[in-house]
Formats: sequence, C-alpha cells, structure tokens
Amino acid sequence: MASRTVSAHAALRQFLRETRRHSLDLAAPLSDADSSAQSMPDASPAKWHLAHTTWFFETFVLTPHVPDYRVFDPAYGFLFNSYYEAAGPRLRRDRRGLLTRPALSEVLAWRAHVDAALERALDDLPDAARALVLLGCHHEQQHQELLLTDILHLFSENPLAPVYAEDAPFPAANADAHDWLAHPGGIVSIGHDEDGFAFDCETPRHPVLLQPFALGSRLVTNAEWATFIDDGGYRTPTLWLSDGWAWVERDDITAPLYWRREDGGWSTMTLSGRQPVDAAAPATHVSYFEADAFARWAGARLPREAEWEAIAENTALSQMFGTCWQWTQSAYAAYPGFRPEAGAVSEYNGKFMCGQFVLRGSSCATPASHARPTYRNFFYPHQRWQFTGVRLAKDI
Amino acid sequence: MASRTVSAHAALRQFLRETRRHSLDLAAPLSDADSSAQSMPDASPAKWHLAHTTWFFETFVLTPHVPDYRVFDPAYGFLFNSYYEAAGPRLRRDRRGLLTRPALSEVLAWRAHVDAALERALDDLPDAARALVLLGCHHEQQHQELLLTDILHLFSENPLAPVYAEDAPFPAANADAHDWLAHPGGIVSIGHDEDGFAFDCETPRHPVLLQPFALGSRLVTNAEWATFIDDGGYRTPTLWLSDGWAWVERDDITAPLYWRREDGGWSTMTLSGRQPVDAAAPATHVSYFEADAFARWAGARLPREAEWEAIAENTALSQMFGTCWQWTQSAYAAYPGFRPEAGAVSEYNGKFMCGQFVLRGSSCATPASHARPTYRNFFYPHQRWQFTGVRLAKDI
Amino acid sequence: MASRTVSAHAALRQFLRETRRHSLDLAAPLSDADSSAQSMPDASPAKWHLAHTTWFFETFVLTPHVPDYRVFDPAYGFLFNSYYEAAGPRLRRDRRGLLTRPALSEVLAWRAHVDAALERALDDLPDAARALVLLGCHHEQQHQELLLTDILHLFSENPLAPVYAEDAPFPAANADAHDWLAHPGGIVSIGHDEDGFAFDCETPRHPVLLQPFALGSRLVTNAEWATFIDDGGYRTPTLWLSDGWAWVERDDITAPLYWRREDGGWSTMTLSGRQPVDAAAPATHVSYFEADAFARWAGARLPREAEWEAIAENTALSQMFGTCWQWTQSAYAAYPGFRPEAGAVSEYNGKFMCGQFVLRGSSCATPASHARPTYRNFFYPHQRWQFTGVRLAKDI
Amino acid sequence: MASRTVSAHAALRQFLRETRRHSLDLAAPLSDADSSAQSMPDASPAKWHLAHTTWFFETFVLTPHVPDYRVFDPAYGFLFNSYYEAAGPRLRRDRRGLLTRPALSEVLAWRAHVDAALERALDDLPDAARALVLLGCHHEQQHQELLLTDILHLFSENPLAPVYAEDAPFPAANADAHDWLAHPGGIVSIGHDEDGFAFDCETPRHPVLLQPFALGSRLVTNAEWATFIDDGGYRTPTLWLSDGWAWVERDDITAPLYWRREDGGWSTMTLSGRQPVDAAAPATHVSYFEADAFARWAGARLPREAEWEAIAENTALSQMFGTCWQWTQSAYAAYPGFRPEAGAVSEYNGKFMCGQFVLRGSSCATPASHARPTYRNFFYPHQRWQFTGVRLAKDI
Ligand SMILES: [Fe+3]
Ligand SMILES: [Fe+3]
Ligand SMILES: [Fe+3]
Ligand SMILES: [Fe+3]
Repeated sequence: MASRTVSAHAALRQFLRETRRHSLDLAAPLSDADSSAQSMPDASPAKWHLAHTTWFFETFVLTPHVPDYRVFDPAYGFLFNSYYEAAGPRLRRDRRGLLTRPALSEVLAWRAHVDAALERALDDLPDAARALVLLGCHHEQQHQELLLTDILHLFSENPLAPVYAEDAPFPAANADAHDWLAHPGGIVSIGHDEDGFAFDCETPRHPVLLQPFALGSRLVTNAEWATFIDDGGYRTPTLWLSDGWAWVERDDITAPLYWRREDGGWSTMTLSGRQPVDAAAPATHVSYFEADAFARWAGARLPREAEWEAIAENTALSQMFGTCWQWTQSAYAAYPGFRPEAGAVSEYNGKFMCGQFVLRGSSCATPASHARPTYRNFFYPHQRWQFTGVRLAKDI
Repeated sequence: MASRTVSAHAALRQFLRETRRHSLDLAAPLSDADSSAQSMPDASPAKWHLAHTTWFFETFVLTPHVPDYRVFDPAYGFLFNSYYEAAGPRLRRDRRGLLTRPALSEVLAWRAHVDAALERALDDLPDAARALVLLGCHHEQQHQELLLTDILHLFSENPLAPVYAEDAPFPAANADAHDWLAHPGGIVSIGHDEDGFAFDCETPRHPVLLQPFALGSRLVTNAEWATFIDDGGYRTPTLWLSDGWAWVERDDITAPLYWRREDGGWSTMTLSGRQPVDAAAPATHVSYFEADAFARWAGARLPREAEWEAIAENTALSQMFGTCWQWTQSAYAAYPGFRPEAGAVSEYNGKFMCGQFVLRGSSCATPASHARPTYRNFFYPHQRWQFTGVRLAKDI
Repeated sequence: MASRTVSAHAALRQFLRETRRHSLDLAAPLSDADSSAQSMPDASPAKWHLAHTTWFFETFVLTPHVPDYRVFDPAYGFLFNSYYEAAGPRLRRDRRGLLTRPALSEVLAWRAHVDAALERALDDLPDAARALVLLGCHHEQQHQELLLTDILHLFSENPLAPVYAEDAPFPAANADAHDWLAHPGGIVSIGHDEDGFAFDCETPRHPVLLQPFALGSRLVTNAEWATFIDDGGYRTPTLWLSDGWAWVERDDITAPLYWRREDGGWSTMTLSGRQPVDAAAPATHVSYFEADAFARWAGARLPREAEWEAIAENTALSQMFGTCWQWTQSAYAAYPGFRPEAGAVSEYNGKFMCGQFVLRGSSCATPASHARPTYRNFFYPHQRWQFTGVRLAKDI
Repeated sequence: MASRTVSAHAALRQFLRETRRHSLDLAAPLSDADSSAQSMPDASPAKWHLAHTTWFFETFVLTPHVPDYRVFDPAYGFLFNSYYEAAGPRLRRDRRGLLTRPALSEVLAWRAHVDAALERALDDLPDAARALVLLGCHHEQQHQELLLTDILHLFSENPLAPVYAEDAPFPAANADAHDWLAHPGGIVSIGHDEDGFAFDCETPRHPVLLQPFALGSRLVTNAEWATFIDDGGYRTPTLWLSDGWAWVERDDITAPLYWRREDGGWSTMTLSGRQPVDAAAPATHVSYFEADAFARWAGARLPREAEWEAIAENTALSQMFGTCWQWTQSAYAAYPGFRPEAGAVSEYNGKFMCGQFVLRGSSCATPASHARPTYRNFFYPHQRWQFTGVRLAKDI
C-alpha cells in the first residue's frame, strides 16, 4: 500500500514534469508575436494557453492548498481565467490577442514559479489536491492540442503560410479499401469505470441498449471527399441539415477548411505550411454539418458515441486514435447519473452540454497519453479547425 | 374490409373538413393587418399560415395526384413554400411580413379553391396521396398552434396589448402540492407503433434502457418561478449552461417572456391581453436555458424524453397534455432505424435534427386530436414564444 | 392689415384642409395590411404617416394651445412620436410595422377628431400656434412624399409587384441633348429671406462666394446610366468614394435600386408596378455614392448646393423641380447664423446635420406647393429609395 | 539656381533620413508582440506602419523610377498596401493583426533595403519621383502619429495598462482663463499657396466669405469637461446630434475615451500608463459628437475650418498646434477647383471626402515639421482614439 502510494506519487510528479515540459516544447518554434496573436474568438494565443494552464494550477491547487504560496501576479487571474464563473471575472474571450503583455518571457517566468511551487508541495498535498494536479495535467494536455490547432489557424490566415515545423503532426494516410465491421447490438456498458483518470463527463459507466450496426474500417479519405465535391455535394441542399445548409450558404462553404483549388488539384494548410492534399490521407478539418452531409451522400450515417465506444473497447480498428477526431451523431449530454466534479472545477464540462456534438478517438495533435476509448470531445456543428474527420456507420 | 375503407374515407374527409374549418375560426378575430404582420423571423403572419397550409395540399396532393387540377396562382409557390428545397426556391423567411398582397380575402379564395378540389378528388386518390392528405391535416394542426403563438408574440410587441379573444386558450392552473412519481427503469419501448397517424420522427418504436427515475406530479408553477427570480436565479451564472448564461447576459433576460414587473406583482401577456400572473398556473414561455437553470436551482433535472414517454403511456399524471409543452434534456435526434418520410415531404422533420431539444406533451394551444404520448416537438434552447413549461425529474 | 390677416387666416385654413385631405387621398388605394407594413427601418407604414402627422398637430398645437382640447388616446403619443426627445419616449423606429392596431379606421377617426378641433380653434390661436399649424402642414407634405416612396419600397419587396395606382407619379422624360448652363461666380445670396414659409435650416439668407461653374441642362438619363453600367462603372473602384466602394461590395450593388435585368433590357419598379426602364427618363433611385461615381466617370462633378440655388433663383432650367431630387456635394450643415426653430420643434432639422448630403429641387412625389429654390432635402449617401437623380456640374 | 537645387537635394535627403530614423525610434520601446497586434479595425500594428510606409517608397518611387531596383519580397505588396485600388488587391484591413510574420526583424531588414536603395537613387531621380519621395516622408509622418495613437489604444485594452514611455508625448496644460478672439469676417483666402509641401486636399488656395466670429483663446480643459459630465451632458439627448445620441446609447458613452472613474476623481490612459486626469490639460480623445454636444452645452459652437485657418495664419493663439487636433464643423470636402494628385497616388485623399469632419492644428503626437495652418486632418464623427480636442467658436 505504502509503496503503491510512493509509486503513485512518483508517477504524478513524472506526469506533471513531462506535461509542463511538453507545453514549452510546443511553443518553442513560435516568436513572441506568433504566441500572442488570436486569429478568431474560438482560438487563443499560444502564450495564453501557456499562461492559462499555469493559472489552473495556481488557482485550484496552490492558492487553496499551499498555505505559504505567493501568487506570482494578482492581475493574472483576470487575464487567464477562461470561463470559471466561480473564480471571478475575466477578460472577454475575444480580447485575448490584445495581451501583448505580459511578454512570453514573463509567462515563462510564471510557469517556472508555479512549477517550482508544485514540485515543493506535491508530496504533502492532500489527496483532493493531488487529484486536482492530475486534472491540471490532463487539462494542460487539452490545451496542448488547442495550441497546435490554434497556431495552424493563425498561420492559415497569413498569406505567407508560415511553417510551424517541418516534422509537425499530421493525420496519417490509410490507403486500404473501405470495409465494414459489424456489431450485433444488445446491452453494452459505456463510460469510464474510474480505474485511472477520466473527466467527469465520461462517468458513470452505465448500460446502453444498442441495435445492430456496423462501423467503417477506416476514416473517409481525401480522395473520397474530392469525389463528394465533384458530385456537387456542397451544392445539393437536400443532403444537408437545415442549419448546415444555412451555414454553407452564409459562409460560402465549398470544401474542407484550409482547402484551396490549385492548378491540377487541391492544396491544404498544414503545420508544415501549405501542401498538396494527400488522396489517401483522411479528410480533416470538416464540420459536423459536412460530416453529416457526406454520410448521407454516401448512403451511410455517422456513428452514435455508444456504438463507437463499444467497438473501441473490443476491436483494434484502424485510425481510431491518433489520426482525426471522429464526429458522432450524439449530442454532448449528461450520462444517466452524471455528477459534475466537486468544488471549484465543477464548471469544467457540465455547462457545455448544449448544442455540441461528441467526437470520439483522438487526433494526430492529441498527446498519446490523453487518448482512451471513453473520451468525449465536443464541438459545435460548424466548428472545424480541429483535426476532425469522418468514420461512417450504418444499421445492419 | 370494404366497410372499414368506407369509414376510413369518411373519417379522413371529416378530419380534413374540421381541420380546414378550424384554421378559419382561429383567424376570425384578426384584421387584414393583424394577419399580415410578422413580429420576428421565428414567427409568421397568420395569413401566411393560412396560405402555406393550403400550398401544402396544392403542392403535395393536388398537383401531382389530380390530373386536371388547375393551380390557383403559380406565383404562390414561391411565396408560401416554407423550407422544402425540393419544391423550389422561396421567399426569405424573414420577409413574410412584407406580403401585404395577396390580401387575406385572396388567400381565403385560394383556400376555398383547394378545399373544393380536395373534396372532389378525395375518394379517388391513391393511398399514398390519401396519406399525404392526412399528413396535410396534421401539418395544418401544427400551424394552428403556431398561428396562435405568433399572434400572441405580435400583440405582445404592441404597446396597446391587444386582446385576441376574451376566451382564448391559456395554461390551466393546478394548485396541488408538488409530488414525485417513481419509475423503476429497465427496458421500455418508445416511439410510435404505426397504429394511427404519427410523424416519421416518432418511429420506429424501439427499446430503450432506463435507470430508475421520478417525474414531478405537476408542472412548475408561476409562484415557484417567482421564488426562483427572487432567489437571484437570473443573476447566478453557476446555475446556467454556458450558452444559456451568454443568452441571459446578451438579451438581458430577467424573467419569462412577456412577464413585466408591476406595482405589487407581475403581469404577463396572454391571448386575452395583459393579465396578472396567476400563482397557481404553470410557468410558461420559458426557454430550455431557463428550464435547465430552474431545475438545477431546484436540485432536480429535466426529464429525458424516453422517461417522459414511459410515464405518459402508463400513468395519468396531471398536466401531461393540453397545458404546456415540457422541455426534456433530450436533443432532437433520429431514433435508431429512423427513415424520413418518402418523396417530396422527406424534408419534413429529419433535417432539423441538430441543435434543438425535444418537448413532450402538448399545450393549451394544441388541437386536442394532435396530442399523443409519442409526439416529439422541438425548438432551439433560446426559443420561448411557444407555451413551454417545466416538469421536473430526478434520479432515484 | 386686418383684411390681410383675414385672408392669411383663410389661406391657412385652406392649406390645412387641402393638406389633410391629400393625405387621405394618397392612402386611399391601400388596404389595411398595405398601410401597416414596414419594409425597412428607413421606411414607415402609411398608417404611421397618417397618424404621426396627426400627432404633430395634437402635440405641438392642440395640447399646449387649446385649453379644452381632449387628447384622443393618451397611448398614441408613445406610438407616433418620431424622434422628438423633448416630447418623451417613443416606439423604436424599426418596430413601426408591428402596430397592426390601432386599425386604419381608428387612425382615420383620430384624424377627424384632430381636424375638427383644429377647425374650431384655428381663428383663435395665437400667432405662434398658427405658425405651428403652418409648420404642421409642411411637415405633413414631407410625409406625403415619404408615404409614396415607402409604399413603393414595400411593393418592390413583394414578388407580386403590386400596382399602387395606374396613374401614379413618375419622373418625366426629357430627351433633349445634354448642354451646360454657365454661371460667372461671385458673391451670391442663398437661403430663405423669410417671405413665406421656410424650414429653419433654409435660413438665414447669407452671401456666399462662388467660383465660375456650369450646371447640366437636364438630369442624367436612364440611357446614360445604362452606358455607365455597360462601361463597368459598378466594377471600377477608382471611380468611387472609399465608403461608396465598400457599400458596392458589401451590398453587391450593380444598378440603381429597383432595376432588374430582363431579356432584352432593364425593368424597374414603379408606383404603377414593374415597368421597362424608359431611356429618356431621368435615372432615379440612385445613392449619393452612385451619383458621385457617375459624375466622375462622366468627367464632371456634382453641384454644390449654393451653385444649384444660384441657378434656380434666376434661370428656368429643365427638371429643376417636380422630377427628381438632385444630389449635391454639399454636406447638410448649418448656415452661418443658423438658429433652430424655438420651442418643442427645435429638433426638427438641426440635429440631423451630420453625415448627410443635401439634395435640391423636388421630385414627382413632392406636393407642388412644397417646392422652392431654397429647399434643402437631405439623406445619407447610401440611401436611394427616394426619387433621387443626378444633375452634373463642372468648373469653368 | 544650381545651388538652390543642391540645397533642395540635400534637404530632401536629410528629411528622408530623419523621417525614416524617427519611425525606428518610435518603435524602439515595443516588443515583437506589441508591434504586431491590432486592437481594432481602425488601428494598425506598429510593425504594419513600419512596413506600409516602406511599401509606399518601394511601390511609388523605387519600382517605377529605379530601373535596377530589386523588390525585397513580392508577397509584401499584398500585405502592406493600405487602400490603393490601383496598386492591386490587399489584405483586409481588419486582418493586419494576424501578420505575426514577417517578423519585426524582417520588416526592419526591408526598411534598410529600401533606405539604401533610396540613398543611392535619390540624386538621380526625376523631379516627379523626388516629389513622391517628399510625399512619402510626409506620409510616413502621418503614420508616425498613428503608430503612437494605435499603441495607446492597444495598451488601453490591456488591463495591465502598459507604459509605452515615461516621457511620451501628452497634451500640455494651459490654466489660463478662457477668452474670445474676434475676427471681423469678410473675404479671406484659405488653402495652400504651393510654396512648400502640402497635400492635394489643401489646394487650391481660394477666397472664402466669412461672417464675423470669435474663437476661444485656448482648448476646452478637463476641468470644464468634468463639469459637462456632472451637469448630465451625457444623459441629455437634446444636446446631441441625432447620430451622436444613437452612438451614446449604443456604446454606452459616459466620458471621453480612456477616462475611468476612480475613488476621488478620474483617471485616463496615456502613453505613460494610466494617470490621474489633469484638470488644466485639454480634454482629449473626444469624438465629434462629444465636441458638438459640449459646444452646444456651453452656448457656443465648433469653428468652421476657414475660420480656424483665418485665425491661424495671422494670430499666435494658444494651443493651435502641438497639443490636440481641433474638431471643426466642416465636413471634409473638396475645395473649389480641387484636383487629386496625379498618377498612382491620386487615391491619397480625395476618395475619403464623405462622412468625415475636418480637424485643424496638430497634436502632441504630430511631428513638428508636419504641422501648418492649412493642414486638414479628418476623421469620422464617432472616432476618438486620436488626440482630439475642442476649441470653441461663436458668432459675433
Ligand atoms: Fe482550460
Ligand atoms: Fe409547414
Ligand atoms: Fe415627422
Ligand atoms: Fe498610408
């Protein structure tokens, strides 16, 4: 028991160090200006991600649980609180790009200050605070993915199409023929069983009754998506949800985000600059609206999240993790018996259960230790700056 | 068999006549101007409802199925198509209030023309067309309710607070103490079994696995809602969904729609003009956001639609029908195995399965023959000009 | 002196009667619905014009100056005050189309009530009040023109293109060759000399120093405008003011308001329904932006208002009055020594002296007795639902 | 003659060097992030100013007039063209803050490249090109002022209220009693006589006929503005232009830009951080709407631009230059006989002659050599992030 605690302590310390280090690595290719700009209200500056994840530890762990902790700068709470009403007022989300100060160097100094305080305090923290440290690490992993997708969006808006890194993450191709994996349905259990970390919204594990169904053996490819375009997919209103068609018309949508028609094909913006679209790679940066229209065009449908999880727990299907998040037709909602995390972090997930759709799996930009079969990502149906893709499903 | 057909034919003719007649009765108190105005994009003029329901029969029944039918005015298709992409282009929804012509009298002449053609054709129509006549009647019943709620909204915007009718529908009070009705959970069947009319979205009937739960014995009352207000419900962000709180702040929401603080209490706008709020009547004209926040404040939650239906099929609980639509926490989505209606009316329901929440029951403005336990109404979470109310639920 | 007073009294009574009668004549072709609809925030319903002009007399003449006057309905002040801050709060301008009540018949009853009271009181009114009656008549004449242009706009939004009247006003053609009328410049006096009625903004008469210039002998024709279009006028940014080009791009402007390209030519919406564009008629329903761009394309410029007035006072140039209002390059501003009308009507003109341009002359929709050389009409540079046209000018 | 040319050449070279150097000095206190952020569409990043002024020389001088000139980076034309339609397409104005690349260091390298090319070419340039170099210097001076006011706005949006420089420019106080300086009116000449540099819009010099008037002896002070506030100036609609009051209500305006009520007084944002408001300093960062309302409240009016210039040419009145730009009631318009600059730079001024008001004088942020009595600055009536102030006028 004691030794398990020791090793748990060591594991947490290790996870914390690696997580905090990884954020710095991700920011390394960015200039002060790169890290400070905000390209749309949905995105945040990289510097803000570095600061906000630090604020999380300072606010929820150090200040309440470490008696002699000295807050680095009392003004930062207002600047780097994201959406926690209980933690006080905050800067409007769409103003984050105006924070040219504190400079990146000051944010890095804050990170070092908080890291040092965590290192000192970690072993003596009560269990509840240690749970918050763990939550803080997983929280920071979420922001690591956002840092990458937000930078990609920022760079996509720059006519110079800057390169973040030559060897940056990208969704790996799979040129196999598309096949179907059948599932007989019946009662399955979904949700996290609380062995290991999970967010509150993944719990409680509970039984669900499924009808027979099949899932696609791989993600929809860019070649298939180009066929959809060529077949008039973006000009055929009857393929689309009503809200989706309104979005297509209002925003003049004709292809996935970042696609541009070039002489002799399509290009797309990537973390390695503008590149030709790879036919065998999965289509990505598509909205729920597009995913749903594509599936209808293909004579299929999107998976329900319970279907996806039932397969993921038992079968090694291609591209389930590490490639693209996969839109499901399930609205993001509370599981039966859902209880938000206790205390100050109770706003983490529950208050977003409205108007968003669940994505399952993980993407090329997700830290590997952040992926699991029960994971529920969620975005609004028009959003597509994440590495989002499509796995088809059908009734059988 | 033959006699059953005869009586089915007679029943359809009778339902058609009564439905068409009832729309005229509803419009009777309205002036030409009243019937032509549109108070917001979500609402339509009464004259438009009278015309659009007529367009439905002309477009989907008479034109394709009655060889010698003469279209009343070819220009009307553009004016009175609501959202059927397959039926061609249409007037922008927010421009319906600009149709001061055709005059109400011309629309009534169109109605008579179509009614006469239907009367003549009815017995000889093929089954598929008769099914569309039946659909057209249920469609018209939906618009009858909208006609009333749209007029209420229009009159609410008029500082003179006009009276639609002194004896107009209103949600009836229930002063009983609030109690809970328990359900043990388990596998229940929900959805329509196709005996009698239902919309496509109510099918197929299918099994669902429920956890134990309880439903409130009556709707939340105005007295209870006033307590929520007095307790700061509209000023406490942690009670609200994130999108809901943004809505409260942007639109400065402080009470149900139509409520106004008067010396010594609240008044509200009704179809009989501005009236004092009745403490024992159900709170109505509340959004999903408000319903959800109220439930959280009350230590309860909103029902899932399957829970509501499981109770409705087996128990005579108060105010399930004929009072207020009841928000559920279920996003409006396809049942497993859902197939849209075939043909031109396939856009009826399926394309709205995004971003809306299901409401169950029926309201004081719903035609009585239009209510059933499997019925799925749906609106966006901010909408509240329908007679919407709250029935609480909880896990047990 | 006494007899002059008598005849002045009789003249005012006569003017009042004719003006009030004329408004009714203008509204005669309109249904209750036609008269209640508002097609854009800039326009008002015809019924509102009938009511607002009545409110003007009730508020500024009868209530303050006729001791026993009984206000017809105290609620109407809120509904029909246009923009007089000093006269109390008022309905938002963009909500005027929601006033389906009071019905047209009630507004007509109000008009009769006010007319009768004015008839009784007129001879005994103090001079200041009689001046307000006169102002009220000229005010009503302004609204008579707006009633027509607002109905035209409403009907233009209706795909049925209703006819207001077969013999409705339209800008008369002039097929003469375009010529220039020169003026030597020097000191001229402009502004009203207070002999007869004028609005405050036309005063005081004052000297202005002009450079030599010439004015076009007639208005720009539709044929000339079509040449401008064919020459790419709407696609050449360097012809346009910066704000004008932004307007062209944002609103996708390609021709005058109401023009539509038909097989073999252009049509336009008129008070007599949709009609072919008459090549010899003056181009109308053009914005300041378009007028300015056209003039630049034509190697000319728009007149200054003092230039226009200097010509109008001394020369009978074609189409100066009764055809189209003529855009000038003069911003609407106070003349040196300008003093707003005293008292409650001081808001009439002065508070609009910002961002608008002066138009001179009068249009086919202006009552003939409302036109004079000193008259200053004004609109924002993007507005074009009035009968606005272009007379060219140049330096010589 | 020859020696005059030599000294003119030397003077231009000197002016160019000093101007280019001064821009670098102004940017010196800024980080890469500071220089890249855009706080509102009206403002531009400092780096953009540094680049755009360089683009001006490259595009209008070097490329057309220096045969062997090598464009530094062909992509920069799209990024740093401001509004010259004739010079090709350009980045949307509101996207300038997304240009985190090129880095400040790359922009500085471009500046050095262009500076070196100008140094080499200067003596051999034809006169027309030398005139463009001179124009480019004055253009850069305009952007120097904007660089400061844009940084001030950016820093004002940052809750940390960063200091640009402790010794930054500010509008100097004048505690003298307010007095009036009379002018008899009559014919005066205004506009530039073409001896020395002027922008095209300052020409031609021409006679204007003035009525007698008086100008205030100094600018309106902060103490006087605080009295206006305390007297309800921002809550009294009858003091305001109609558009101004709409602006006050929509944007909830209650004080000059940057003012904040503190315990015991007001503070304001300055280039030296947030500071107490100095009672004797001129009120600044006020819009035309505010200036006009203040003048009305004070029983005065704003000057006409010809009045201001007539005084400035003949009298050494306090605070005419180097303190705050002074709103006039004159709409920015073409002088009689105005001809835009020839060639590619013809869009410089003329296309903005719509909807803006002229400001006269110069501010604490204006380079001293950039101020002259004929100078015409112009902004929209709601804009107030420049150092704008009020000098009163009255009829006498
Ligand atoms: Fe976060
Ligand atoms: Fe319908
Ligand atoms: Fe008026
Ligand atoms: Fe510039």
